[in-house]
Amino acid sequence: MLSKLPFTINALHDAYAAGASPVDVIDEIFARLEAVNDPGIFIHLCARESLRAEAAVLGKYDPDKPLWGIPYAVKDNIDVSGIETTAACPAYAYMPDEDAFLIAKLRAAGALMIGKTNLDQFATGLVGVRTPYGAPLNAIDPEIVPGGSSGGSGVVVGHGIVSFALGTDTAGSGRVPAALNNIVGLKPTLGALSASGVVPACRTTETVSIFALTVDDAYAAFAIARGFDAADAYSKPMTHEPLSAPQMPLRVGIPDPASIKFFGDTVQKATFERDIADLAARGAIIEPIDFEPLYAIAEMLYQGAWVAERYTVIADLLAKDPEAIHPVTRKIITHAESMSAADAFNGFYRLAELKRAAEPMLARLDLLCVPTIPTFYTVADLDADPVTPNSNNGTYTNFVNLLDMCGVAVPTAPRSDGRPGSVTLLAGAGKDALVAAVARDFEKDCPRMMGATRHPAPSPTPLPLAVPDTIELAVCGAHMSDLPLNWQLTDLGGVFVRKARTTSDYKFYALAGGPPARPGLVKTGDAGAAIALEIWSLPKTAFGTFMAGIPAPLGIGTVSLSDGSSVKGFLCEASGLDGATDITALGDWRSFLAQDAVPA
Amino acid sequence: MLSKLPFTINALHDAYAAGASPVDVIDEIFARLEAVNDPGIFIHLCARESLRAEAAVLGKYDPDKPLWGIPYAVKDNIDVSGIETTAACPAYAYMPDEDAFLIAKLRAAGALMIGKTNLDQFATGLVGVRTPYGAPLNAIDPEIVPGGSSGGSGVVVGHGIVSFALGTDTAGSGRVPAALNNIVGLKPTLGALSASGVVPACRTTETVSIFALTVDDAYAAFAIARGFDAADAYSKPMTHEPLSAPQMPLRVGIPDPASIKFFGDTVQKATFERDIADLAARGAIIEPIDFEPLYAIAEMLYQGAWVAERYTVIADLLAKDPEAIHPVTRKIITHAESMSAADAFNGFYRLAELKRAAEPMLARLDLLCVPTIPTFYTVADLDADPVTPNSNNGTYTNFVNLLDMCGVAVPTAPRSDGRPGSVTLLAGAGKDALVAAVARDFEKDCPRMMGATRHPAPSPTPLPLAVPDTIELAVCGAHMSDLPLNWQLTDLGGVFVRKARTTSDYKFYALAGGPPARPGLVKTGDAGAAIALEIWSLPKTAFGTFMAGIPAPLGIGTVSLSDGSSVKGFLCEASGLDGATDITALGDWRSFLAQDAVPA
Repeated sequence: MLSKLPFTINALHDAYAAGASPVDVIDEIFARLEAVNDPGIFIHLCARESLRAEAAVLGKYDPDKPLWGIPYAVKDNIDVSGIETTAACPAYAYMPDEDAFLIAKLRAAGALMIGKTNLDQFATGLVGVRTPYGAPLNAIDPEIVPGGSSGGSGVVVGHGIVSFALGTDTAGSGRVPAALNNIVGLKPTLGALSASGVVPACRTTETVSIFALTVDDAYAAFAIARGFDAADAYSKPMTHEPLSAPQMPLRVGIPDPASIKFFGDTVQKATFERDIADLAARGAIIEPIDFEPLYAIAEMLYQGAWVAERYTVIADLLAKDPEAIHPVTRKIITHAESMSAADAFNGFYRLAELKRAAEPMLARLDLLCVPTIPTFYTVADLDADPVTPNSNNGTYTNFVNLLDMCGVAVPTAPRSDGRPGSVTLLAGAGKDALVAAVARDFEKDCPRMMGATRHPAPSPTPLPLAVPDTIELAVCGAHMSDLPLNWQLTDLGGVFVRKARTTSDYKFYALAGGPPARPGLVKTGDAGAAIALEIWSLPKTAFGTFMAGIPAPLGIGTVSLSDGSSVKGFLCEASGLDGATDITALGDWRSFLAQDAVPA
Repeated sequence: MLSKLPFTINALHDAYAAGASPVDVIDEIFARLEAVNDPGIFIHLCARESLRAEAAVLGKYDPDKPLWGIPYAVKDNIDVSGIETTAACPAYAYMPDEDAFLIAKLRAAGALMIGKTNLDQFATGLVGVRTPYGAPLNAIDPEIVPGGSSGGSGVVVGHGIVSFALGTDTAGSGRVPAALNNIVGLKPTLGALSASGVVPACRTTETVSIFALTVDDAYAAFAIARGFDAADAYSKPMTHEPLSAPQMPLRVGIPDPASIKFFGDTVQKATFERDIADLAARGAIIEPIDFEPLYAIAEMLYQGAWVAERYTVIADLLAKDPEAIHPVTRKIITHAESMSAADAFNGFYRLAELKRAAEPMLARLDLLCVPTIPTFYTVADLDADPVTPNSNNGTYTNFVNLLDMCGVAVPTAPRSDGRPGSVTLLAGAGKDALVAAVARDFEKDCPRMMGATRHPAPSPTPLPLAVPDTIELAVCGAHMSDLPLNWQLTDLGGVFVRKARTTSDYKFYALAGGPPARPGLVKTGDAGAAIALEIWSLPKTAFGTFMAGIPAPLGIGTVSLSDGSSVKGFLCEASGLDGATDITALGDWRSFLAQDAVPA
């Protein structure tokens, strides 16, 4: 029975709820591993008997543990207590005596760590073959590179052997393998996931990442793994947002025809155009933009000073035993030896200027949508030229962390030649929920198998609408457009939305006092008229400031509208009507102002 | 008449309003310069006739121009169109063809630029004597160093020759000369003042700064000069806050006895203790803290990679003509030649870790208050040892920009030996208004002359109270402590303030519907009772979210309290009372709940 089960979190939890045991899931994992028969996936696969024992300890299914019995794998540059961390370099290996910060969180949530996966040595590469442990094979097509640097993690999820796997991502290591293995790659905002217990590649510019079969599963694992860690100087306190349906129309930037690159892959081009058409059909406003400024930023990652970050990690080993380092990796990283501290600062200055130049373009957009990879390279391509295909793989990924954007790579429907489609949604720091929600809509509209499995991706369940960050407010007097108190709205970022009328059971008064003259709107429940309103939208965060300036007898309550809806709006206490003039018959504050020549 | 006038902005504007002419002010400036007779102040003093002509062009006094006719000076590492910028290095000099971004703003506001002031070459130093142009003399005591690197700017303000002067500040160059010349030094948050047209020292860690005779004048010039500049990649968009009275009690950290340093200067120690006692008397909570973590950060500025930023500025000149650079400056900056890009990154990692370690301590505090300088050094001390006194001068200034704090150095009453007292208030990025307001309170309480002038500092006028960032809200039902909707307040950061009662003209109802049961409070203007309330304080930014959840017929208006005050609070529309029970006689929602055994 388990042999037919896709290992999504929901499917496993349903099976557990129905009586399946995590011990059986461990057995099924080994059955799948045997069927796949790829010794390149794991650098360390945990012993079956110890995993069965660990699974047995979980006891009875506990639905309160969000990852109870969920199997996952970990890129071998992240510490798991009692298992050597190698970073794919045997000479570098060490035995950690405690879990990385986020591994401890996953363990506490009931997840089962199956093994440590292979990677491009020191997480340097986007291909997955720069490892002395024997490269894993791409889950979809063994002739294609598995992708890297988180190659083993991408492949093991692609085969559906685990529900999710951790990678790391500086240049695209958490996204490129997702595209190549037909799975989801979630690359969080820098600092959302702790780097304590992670072998650094570029400490200032990297993050742990999550591969999964679906966006929901990646986001669920992210929700558990994330959290501020004071011991990691680059960890940031951030609020976790639940997923909510994106509020269309979103403005989505894509590479314009002059700057888009597919390196001759016309099928990839057609696939991306198809996917963008789908996005537009869901209500997005597509805006082709010049990507050259982003490519200029991308170039800095390996050509600029940042490669010196990688150098700091292996400097001791390089001095002691340079031959212990993969020759391609060594060549890339030792490039840093010629770079001075002044070069580093000149690099930061240039990055700051490139960012500044890109800011106006990015500020206009809610998201970017890019092909995750521009084309597919074979292992043979890499043998012929170990550098160019690697660089090209990073076309749409390299700039992202330097700009502190977050992203989700999501499979789309297969290309016309059967290879997996994939786009990546990107947005500014902290917008992890937004990119995941938009990625999820691609899952809804793009029928596909999950990874290399025969299981179709489940259509995601509908999400609640995003909580708006504005509040609509009905105004009926001096706050209306061009009237004396309108600045109280506009100064706080208020925006005119529409005109409206109340239901016909309101009385309307001109209050005593002023200037400015103020109206009083009072619901009667029976007699009255439909009073003219303007609906304004105000940032929720500004509402308290607005409220503080409203004097008695006015207040804010709920106003019933003639279209059957209701909205927050100005009301007047009945006790404040002494000396007021009933102007209900006029129905509109502007008519009152015009008629009586009241000073506005 | 002008000869007796202190050149504060107010005094000058009063004189202009009374008919004085800026041309006469120019003449008075030259009279003062002649009396002071210090050729070390200016590298370039504008020609008297051209200044008179420029002053004449201003025409009739225009009170709408906030700096109309206000004379100022500019450190000679900031571009003024048509005047050579030297950075105190003749071989580096160039002729700018446009004003620096902020010079253009000051010019547009009516300010008169008198000349370009001397500095420690390339703004490297805190002493003011590392210049080939002949050092300026300290305005108070010529045996003492003038302070640097903005030495000429500090001295010219100290003599009261101009109203304000621009400096720059990386390690303390905008604060140390203020302490030494008995004036105010405002060092803004990084990025508040544009660096376009400024010769960089440490682009990532420096700012233009402002010296003035009073905090108000420094803040007035800051208000004009500041502003986002897209052409400066390190400029940041920030809101300018007007000054407001600080809300005591503020929690102020000072160096604890184990970490405070005066290098044997017991008078400085006694002066600081006196000043802190004054601060405590104004209501501050003084918290002695261990400054060692901050000193560790400070050390990175010259020992760490940041000196390579200075190297990037002079690299070309060093290659071409090393002898053109001041020998002390050259020795300091060429230290960067031995630093690799990897060293730079290791420095950033260490800084990030030191910052992280200091964060919990700083998060507990509103401000730091430090002696601006630990002691006074003479020019002779510097001749004997050009480095140690310079380093010691930076004890309380070096760490500030690395932590992205802002600060104001403000004179206090003179020390017992007559030398100027000075403290610096420091706070996190963006709190420029807070540090200025607290500094201003020192001016109020510390009688002193301004700079080296015979003019007592004017007592600053009282400020409006700071706009509170919370709103008080009266609740009378299910939102009260321990009742079912109280979480709606606490989840949003609401805090219980006090119990209260309404005036005795409110009716109180139990509305139909629920659970939870909800009350309705309606003002009658005559009959009724004083109803029990709880007053809660809610962050203003959360109020919109709270409001969005309030259903009809409830709303928020103004509630009159029995103590004669009023507060925002829950009200009920009279039209919503169908089916409600009048519980006015009970006077309290809790009595209603108790009496009727209503499900809470």
